[in-house]
Formats: sequence, C-alpha cells, structure tokens
Amino acid sequence: MRQILILGAGRSASSLIGQLMDDAPREGWRITVVDRDLAHAQALVGDGGGVARAEAGDAGDAAVRERLIGAHDLVISMLPAFMHLDVVKDCLRLKRHVITPSYVPDALWPLDADVRQAGLIFLNELGLDPGIDHMSAMRILDRIRAEGGRMEAFESYCGGLIAPESDDNPWGYKFTWNPRNVVLAGQGGMARYIKDGSYKYLPYHRLFRETVRVTVPGYGAFDGYANRDSLKYRRHYGLEGIPTLVRGTLRKAGFCAAWDCFVQLGCTDDSFPLELRPHATWEEFLEAFLPHDVERDVRANLAHTLGLDPRGEVMEKLDWLGLFGRERIGVQGLSPAATLQHLLEARWKLAPGDKDMVVMWHRFRYTVDDRHQELQASLVVLGDDPVHTGMARTVGLPLAFAARLVLGGGIKQRGVLLPITSEIYDPILDALGTAGIRFTEEEVEG
Amino acid sequence: MRQILILGAGRSASSLIGQLMDDAPREGWRITVVDRDLAHAQALVGDGGGVARAEAGDAGDAAVRERLIGAHDLVISMLPAFMHLDVVKDCLRLKRHVITPSYVPDALWPLDADVRQAGLIFLNELGLDPGIDHMSAMRILDRIRAEGGRMEAFESYCGGLIAPESDDNPWGYKFTWNPRNVVLAGQGGMARYIKDGSYKYLPYHRLFRETVRVTVPGYGAFDGYANRDSLKYRRHYGLEGIPTLVRGTLRKAGFCAAWDCFVQLGCTDDSFPLELRPHATWEEFLEAFLPHDVERDVRANLAHTLGLDPRGEVMEKLDWLGLFGRERIGVQGLSPAATLQHLLEARWKLAPGDKDMVVMWHRFRYTVDDRHQELQASLVVLGDDPVHTGMARTVGLPLAFAARLVLGGGIKQRGVLLPITSEIYDPILDALGTAGIRFTEEEVEG
Repeated sequence: MRQILILGAGRSASSLIGQLMDDAPREGWRITVVDRDLAHAQALVGDGGGVARAEAGDAGDAAVRERLIGAHDLVISMLPAFMHLDVVKDCLRLKRHVITPSYVPDALWPLDADVRQAGLIFLNELGLDPGIDHMSAMRILDRIRAEGGRMEAFESYCGGLIAPESDDNPWGYKFTWNPRNVVLAGQGGMARYIKDGSYKYLPYHRLFRETVRVTVPGYGAFDGYANRDSLKYRRHYGLEGIPTLVRGTLRKAGFCAAWDCFVQLGCTDDSFPLELRPHATWEEFLEAFLPHDVERDVRANLAHTLGLDPRGEVMEKLDWLGLFGRERIGVQGLSPAATLQHLLEARWKLAPGDKDMVVMWHRFRYTVDDRHQELQASLVVLGDDPVHTGMARTVGLPLAFAARLVLGGGIKQRGVLLPITSEIYDPILDALGTAGIRFTEEEVEG
Repeated sequence: MRQILILGAGRSASSLIGQLMDDAPREGWRITVVDRDLAHAQALVGDGGGVARAEAGDAGDAAVRERLIGAHDLVISMLPAFMHLDVVKDCLRLKRHVITPSYVPDALWPLDADVRQAGLIFLNELGLDPGIDHMSAMRILDRIRAEGGRMEAFESYCGGLIAPESDDNPWGYKFTWNPRNVVLAGQGGMARYIKDGSYKYLPYHRLFRETVRVTVPGYGAFDGYANRDSLKYRRHYGLEGIPTLVRGTLRKAGFCAAWDCFVQLGCTDDSFPLELRPHATWEEFLEAFLPHDVERDVRANLAHTLGLDPRGEVMEKLDWLGLFGRERIGVQGLSPAATLQHLLEARWKLAPGDKDMVVMWHRFRYTVDDRHQELQASLVVLGDDPVHTGMARTVGLPLAFAARLVLGGGIKQRGVLLPITSEIYDPILDALGTAGIRFTEEEVEG
C-alpha cells in the first residue's frame, strides 16, 4: 500500500484527485488530501471511495508538514508558490518524492545535488503551463533534432479561455481561473525574448499593444502577448543560440487592444487604495484616470486620449462592461486593479452551463538539409461545466499520471527535475492522449 | 554644554555641519558626526574647530545607537529612510529630541501620543523637499486664511537642477544629487492628485507626457511632472476640500518629452539584469527595447515607434547622449535603469566649475470676498561649486536652524511634528532668509 499526500485542495486539484482515486484500487494507493479548510478537501474527496480521505491541516506549520510528509510515500504539493520551498526542504530531509505544478524557485536549484544524493525525485512544473507546454514542446524538439533538424524559431502560446459555445460577450472572455491573476497579468516584470538574434525587452505598457496573431485550426484567431521571461527556456530546452524564442499568453482576437486601455489608463495598478467620491460611478472611475478635460464627456475624453474610434470595437467592449453608465462602483478603498476586478467578476462570470477552453499552440521553424520547415502543434481542451473545467483537467491530470510514473519506478533520473526528458514526457503525454488531451500537428513546407 | 549627534555624513550633511560648527561656540554646543565610514565624517568635520569631532559607527547596530544617542541631547538623523524608524524608537526610549529631513514613516504616527507624553520633539521632513516646501507653503497659506481667503488651488513644484551659467548640454540637466533617484523618479507608485474637484491618477508611463509648464521669473520655463501622492498634503496643510492640489518635480523645459522616450521604451526598468551581446553598443541597447524592424535602422525605428520628428529636439537630446553611436556600453549584467545610469553619469557629470540650482515654485489660487486672487512664490538657490551645492544648503540649513530652535526652547509643541506651524516655520524661514534663501512673491489679480 503506497501513501500519497496532496497538500492544498484548490479548484485545480479536482481532476488530480479524481484521477488518483480512479487509479488507487488498481495501484494499491491510499490518498490523503489536506487543506486548511476541511470543507474544501472534503468536497474534492467525497465519500473517499475507500481509498481517500480529507484532513484539516495548515501546511504553513512546520510540525504539521513534518507529521504529514513523514507518513506518506509521495507528496503532491498544490500549495501557493511561496510555500513550495518549505515543502520541498522537508521532503529532502524526510526523504520523500515530491511532484508539483509550481515553477522551480531559484533557491531550489542549489539543492539539486543533495536531492540526487538522497535518491529522490523532485518533479516540478508539471501542470498545464508550466507542464504540458514543456512536455509537448520537448517531444517535438527532440524529434526534430533526432531527424537532424536545426531549430531557427520556437514560439509557444497558451491561454485559459472560454469555449466558443459559451462565448457570448464582446470580449470573448470569462474568468475560468484566478481573476486576480488575469487582471495583474504582465506586471511581473518586463517581457524578455529573442527575435531573429536580437534580445527584445517589452515593458508592461506596451505588452498588450505589441501582440501577434495566432490561428488555431478550427478555433479561429487569437491575440498572443509575450510572457515574462522567455530567455530562460533556451537552457531548459537546449535551445542555446536559437535566433527566435518567445513564449506568451493567448486571448481571443481583439481582447488585447481593449485590455490595453486599462493598462494605458493605469486601471490595473495594484499598489495603493483608490480614493474616489462616495457612491462614485464607473464613469467616475474611468474619469479619474483620464486627463482633465472640460470640453469632452468621459466617453469622448477616453476615445480622444487613447486615440480610439468612438464607434469601434474597443469602445464597444468598454461600453458592454458598463463603464460609461451611472452604475455605482459598490466597493471602496481597493486598489485600481481590485476595483476593476470587482466589475469584471460580475461581467465575466461563468454561467451554470458554461464551458471553459484551454488552448496551447507551438510553432517550430527549423532547417533540415538546408530546407526550411515549419511545424505547428495545437491543443484545445474543453471543460464539461464550470466545476469540471479544461483548466482543472490539464493542470491535474499530468500530476496524476506523474504520480503513477514515480511510484511505479518509471523515472530513473534523480534530483530537481522538469518534465523535459522522454522518460517523463512520453508516458505522461501518452496517458494524456488516452484521456483525450492531445495535440494536432500541421506541417508547413518552407 | 549641549551635545548634538549627527547620524550619517552623506553629501547633503555638509552645509548642516558647517552651520552647526559656526554656531557652536556662541551656543555652547559640542557636535559628534558619526558615519560607518570615518573618512566621510572626518571630511565634513575637518579639524573640528574645537567644537566637533568625527567618529566611526554603524547606526544599524542597536548597541551603537543606544550608546551614541544616550550620550547626546539632540539627534539629527541623516540616515537613509529605512533606518529612520529604528533611530526614533531609540530616541523615544532614551528620551532625546530628534530632527530629520526624512518623510515620516507610516509606522511613526502611532507613536505620536507616546512622544508627546515623554515631552519630546520628533521634527521630521525638514530639508528642502520635504522641508522648505512645507514651511514656505504653510506661511503663505496661513496668511491667506488669516486674510479670509478661501483656497481654490495649490500647486507646488521643486527641482534640483543645473545653474544657467553651467547649463551647456541640450538636456539642460546634470546630476546634482543621487543619480539613481533621478533615473528611477516616478516609479514609486501612481501619481495621485486632485484637479477641479476630480481625483486624478496618472501611471508612470504617462507621467512625463502629461506635464505642466512652469515659468519662474528670471529663470525661464520648466516642465513640471506630478509627484507620487499629493493627496496626503490636504490633511497636512489643512486643505481638505480644496478642488485642486498637485505637487510635482521640475525639469528644464523640454527635458520631460525626451526622458519620456526612455520610459516608453522600458529603459528605466530596474527589475532584472539586462542580457545583451558581449561588447554591445548603445545602439544595441536602444534596439533591444524597440519592435523588431528589418526595414529601418535604429534611429528611424525609434522615431517611428515613438512618433518623433527625426530632426526634432527630442532626437537631438538622445543623439547628444551618444545612443546612436558605436560606442560600447562597457557594463554588463545591470538592470536597464542601471545600464542607462552608467551612460548618464558620464554625460551629465558636473564639471569642476559647475554650479547647481534648486528651484521651488508655488501657486496659490484663492478667493477673498468673491474676488479671485493668485499668488506665485518662487525660490532659486544657486550652489557655489560641485561640493558646496544649493542642494546641500537647502537640505542642511533648515536642519541646523531647527537644531538651534529646539535646543533654545523655541518649540512648544511636542510629538511627531512636521514644520507646518508658525512657531517652527517662522524662525527657520527667517534664518534661511538671512542666509540668502528666500522666496520671491508675485501677486496676480484674478
């Protein structure tokens, strides 16, 4: 009997726990799901099916972590990133394998030698993005390299979006995951990438202006904006010296130009509590970010300031949010970003029947025997409903399949690992394919 | 014999120490100047004139602080802002008065009752800006109110600049104080002010675009850009309900439009180490922040991207810095801001004979008996040379005069204080006037 510990029972843990519980009778597993809020854990475990149980526990408490980790064979940490390092240090001391969808914190790499020495697997970045992006890209990159191809460009974009059948607003967007992260997206530092051999640095206030158009067969056009640090992927993927490498985020075509209005105005700033008149309206919210203008109303001032067509699609999107109406804001003392989030959560809320949609798209440009080749690979995963989302499946299932792989002895490497070697990505991608999560590839002759 | 302790012997302490040493024989003071670097303290104290001595000491060490503060009657803290709270807490415990040019940290206000109870004077924000700005504004505001005036607008700008006779570059700027603070200026959060009764919030990327023109009689035109939080001055100055209140920073006219290029490109970002090719040129530095463009050279790309006249004044300023030349950057692994600072420190360096210039400008609009009135007050202080600067005099002399006032029993208030009451600002402004630091007022009938 192998014991699996899951720390943190957030929304994205549902598919992970469901899959583990499905596999547990056959594999001989027992699963413990721990959350500070017992109700969260219980909701995901249900009656436990004889294989799983929920427990209340604060993973921020070192004694609690020690007791829990010591009593299990494998730890899956779904905790927020800032708690990740404490967990893995305990796993090293207590000699337990650990799997997580989190990014490797900088302070973890120096422990790599110790983790290897201890014969442990610390497998990170194993959700959707990061996770499926690594695995799907590396499988194709390794194949291209095996065929003698020389990489010239790698571009990769991913987005958590709304399914076409549930897309009923002009933004083409609803919140299918953490709204705060969506509102603050892009504020984690300048976007850094490389294009035709030149380093490129893009500040937040140009991020949603300098977008690319990505077309996914069968799903239409998307805007792609660059993510924080694409440069580090050169090392991860063995692409040192590649002339073009950029990673980014997808939104439905047209979204970014409208979102850019909020960025330009400063409405996404999260650094201070906004002060407005009591009972201020959304129009006053906008006006506070616009230059003083006694001749124009707020709508005309906005269009003039940002150089927008007063009857264009961007204004239509802002209009649809109710920003020019007399509706009161209804919250006070929040940052501009949190105030805006309050409006967006009401407008971009998933309706009961709504389905989310995860989209990932890679483009590989390379030469084989001096012939230019291009390969595009895309993944689209639709959710079932607002609870069983494509996001939860694509974050959770890689972790569940990795758990099977680790406990089954399928991984020979030891140390601080990313899912970028075939012994890891092949079985997991195969299992994802069986679960209906598979990429479509399209070759383009150069 | 009264003992004065000066913690921190930075550049701006020179005039402070000089003035205190001048006054010491008459007043019966002994002065101790403490710095981690004994040479810094010794350079300012010289032979001590029988009244002052230098001492090495780390004010970050609680035991050192305790010993030093306990042995003196008055503490003048010139330490960096982040060390200020530790010092004042020690002063409270050891029952010593303290004077500082630093902003009151939020965590200090709650100690106000304890400070009053202990009969102590904690006098803050007593340099130039903050400092002379408070005192000069409050003297005029109190006079206007005493005359029955009702304030409609208060605008206040200040800048540390270069004297006209030393102004020999197209930017009209040289570094007369901390270069890093100049490069990062405006990044401390959105500018917040109030204009004609409407709150206004301005993000960093619009700060140097939405400037005002300020004219100082005899000194020409300046650009004014808004400072971080003007709103808090309503409370400090008793201006609750005022329709317009904005505080800002002055640069010579034309500076802000050119500086805005760096902001737009992202060159002032300080959050990550820039990666460029080894031996990269300044042109490559610029190019890294520009969109990929195979048809234009860097100069044309920049003009196109930012909508600049290729032969205009902004391009002339950038050109003068050598940004389009083949000169190598010469530093590596610094942030964009620090890399840019490296260039600017070479270009904007004070020459041996150069004089700095401090400019402060206030505009008061008010009504008396329904008549609109306007008063402008301006201060210009020229330095003597690159060591005896106007900046050092305007930061240091208010502190020196305040020391005399505190030790002479001239301040009746107790607690955490700003220099906004007449018992503080009158004697200090009078002494500044005697030292040649005085405002010129100009009334404009409405």
